[in-house]
Amino acid sequence: MKYLSEKAKRLTPYVAGLQPQGEGWIKLNTNENPYPPAPSVFDVLKAADIEKLRLYPDGESGILKSAIGAALCVGEDYVFCANSSDEVLALAFQAFFSGKNNVKTADISYGFYPVWGQIYDVGLDFVSVGSDFSISPDDYKNAEGVVIANPNAPTSLALGLSQVEKIVATNPDAVVVLDEAYIDFARVESAVALVQRYKNLLVTRTFSKSHSLAGLRVGYAIGDPMLIDGLCRVRDAFNSYPLDKLAQLGAAAAISNPAYLRETCAKIIDTREKTISALQNLGFEVLPSQANFIFMQATDAGILYEYLLQNKIIARHWNKPRVDDYLRVSIGTENDMEVFVTCVKQYLNERQKKQV
Amino acid sequence: MKYLSEKAKRLTPYVAGLQPQGEGWIKLNTNENPYPPAPSVFDVLKAADIEKLRLYPDGESGILKSAIGAALCVGEDYVFCANSSDEVLALAFQAFFSGKNNVKTADISYGFYPVWGQIYDVGLDFVSVGSDFSISPDDYKNAEGVVIANPNAPTSLALGLSQVEKIVATNPDAVVVLDEAYIDFARVESAVALVQRYKNLLVTRTFSKSHSLAGLRVGYAIGDPMLIDGLCRVRDAFNSYPLDKLAQLGAAAAISNPAYLRETCAKIIDTREKTISALQNLGFEVLPSQANFIFMQATDAGILYEYLLQNKIIARHWNKPRVDDYLRVSIGTENDMEVFVTCVKQYLNERQKKQV
Repeated sequence: MKYLSEKAKRLTPYVAGLQPQGEGWIKLNTNENPYPPAPSVFDVLKAADIEKLRLYPDGESGILKSAIGAALCVGEDYVFCANSSDEVLALAFQAFFSGKNNVKTADISYGFYPVWGQIYDVGLDFVSVGSDFSISPDDYKNAEGVVIANPNAPTSLALGLSQVEKIVATNPDAVVVLDEAYIDFARVESAVALVQRYKNLLVTRTFSKSHSLAGLRVGYAIGDPMLIDGLCRVRDAFNSYPLDKLAQLGAAAAISNPAYLRETCAKIIDTREKTISALQNLGFEVLPSQANFIFMQATDAGILYEYLLQNKIIARHWNKPRVDDYLRVSIGTENDMEVFVTCVKQYLNERQKKQV
Repeated sequence: MKYLSEKAKRLTPYVAGLQPQGEGWIKLNTNENPYPPAPSVFDVLKAADIEKLRLYPDGESGILKSAIGAALCVGEDYVFCANSSDEVLALAFQAFFSGKNNVKTADISYGFYPVWGQIYDVGLDFVSVGSDFSISPDDYKNAEGVVIANPNAPTSLALGLSQVEKIVATNPDAVVVLDEAYIDFARVESAVALVQRYKNLLVTRTFSKSHSLAGLRVGYAIGDPMLIDGLCRVRDAFNSYPLDKLAQLGAAAAISNPAYLRETCAKIIDTREKTISALQNLGFEVLPSQANFIFMQATDAGILYEYLLQNKIIARHWNKPRVDDYLRVSIGTENDMEVFVTCVKQYLNERQKKQV
């Protein structure tokens, strides 16, 4: 296309998971939460002052920053909010990594990192994860920047806090971005505990997973006020008001309800463990998940993926080296996962019959 | 700040107008609409299915694209939606202008254009507007890209459709971006009428002004499907789901109510003309506005700005060559503007007394 800039031509855009229209699908492909948002979100959105939508929102998302700060026991000046953690991460790439080389990330991780690397001129160094998909902190020394998803996707594995601290402490001159989209489902502790001690640590979070608000597009970052200022600087060179009023209100209501968060996360973790057991009983190898999805090994994973799809169950499969023998499966309701396990059983039976 | 990328260090971020907290202000500085959003917006947002916010929104904003297409009589494939027209414009700069030189724009225009030029490596050629602030199509030949606000801000002047067509027709190899944020308040016709004939024309629009939805952050572009594909490509390398579900619903409801749009725009235009007459009667020169704001000449405009501010009226003033003798004043309600004109009178009286 002759009008496209050279940069735009070179891009390989990220491909998000299918969003099927119509009813009857069991959607286990984009790690959405099967439970509704907190009751307080319903209340605040139903009561919202629609008349006031004629005015610009607070570009600093003050109400939301204050709610996040209170929930995570950090000052408001440690908080940055934007339209999804994807946007937060894209702004962080521009603020801290643009033009740098040797920004280290895992070779098997969130598919958006290499895309932001391309569009924002970041020289990414893709560090191989171990044969067990584990990340070794020693591989992340002497970087000009680090970005790690913890828990990692699609592997579902997580680094402990001391391992994270090692990466942060050994890179005092580089910003370490820790993408904690799935931390509320993990056994490990959040690195938010470290932001007051390490000026180079930026932790990013989302309301899309544990808070059941993927449809509202809210993400945030926690870090030293100096890093937050850097993010604001880039935001204000792009779009001064990234978060609409309703999104700010809804997200603030969600994070102010920690009991509901704990309750729904506990249900998902419980379902996750039951699903893993059931799959192990069927002979599958499943990684020890710390997220709201599992990463299961399956010979002919692509065929199993298609089989599930024909039965209106959507999982995620990548035709890529090292992971093409795996499926990533989000944790839905108890019932969703029973239907999923039954479908997998049926697949195994049909396959066995064919082989006999 | 040692962690900032060189690119981020070099940025001069855009400074948006003040958003005062507290009551009692007459806010005439960010061109917000004084009237509430359409009744249909209230209805659809109050009836929204909050439970479904647990799922990702439609990244393509299908419902909204369809409503926009129907309202403007273009196919859905001619429509692109994002989180504000600022975001649409920022994506357009990346898709069509990154790395190019000689992208022409007016030297007096929207303050965000030079900022996007900096952050997305666009060599902007700032073309001087005439002494009467007019834009001459002849100055925009042989460009590698063009971006023009029509009506222009802060001048409030607009090019007629034939003048716009001249710019588009004389640059067949360059994308012409026409920022029509204020077109619904203009006497001139929208360039949307030209998009089927010119593959290089992209018209951008916002819901923040004429639709009274600044708080919801929705913008869109209309152009040849090839240009729309280019925008999607860059969006998908940045943030797959820029518009949340409520924003999509609210904006779709607003644009499906053309009678309300016409009615509120007519009221604003009427108030604008009355305000211009009143100011002219006080001896001020005011440009013939085609927007929901006026650009008035005032000796010591900075002092008048401060005087208004002390009286809780916020206008906009720039300490910049050629415009420092002017104030930009948004059109509020009839009553807002009567208070404003009275305050200006009072300022003139006090000033006269001092000089006597």
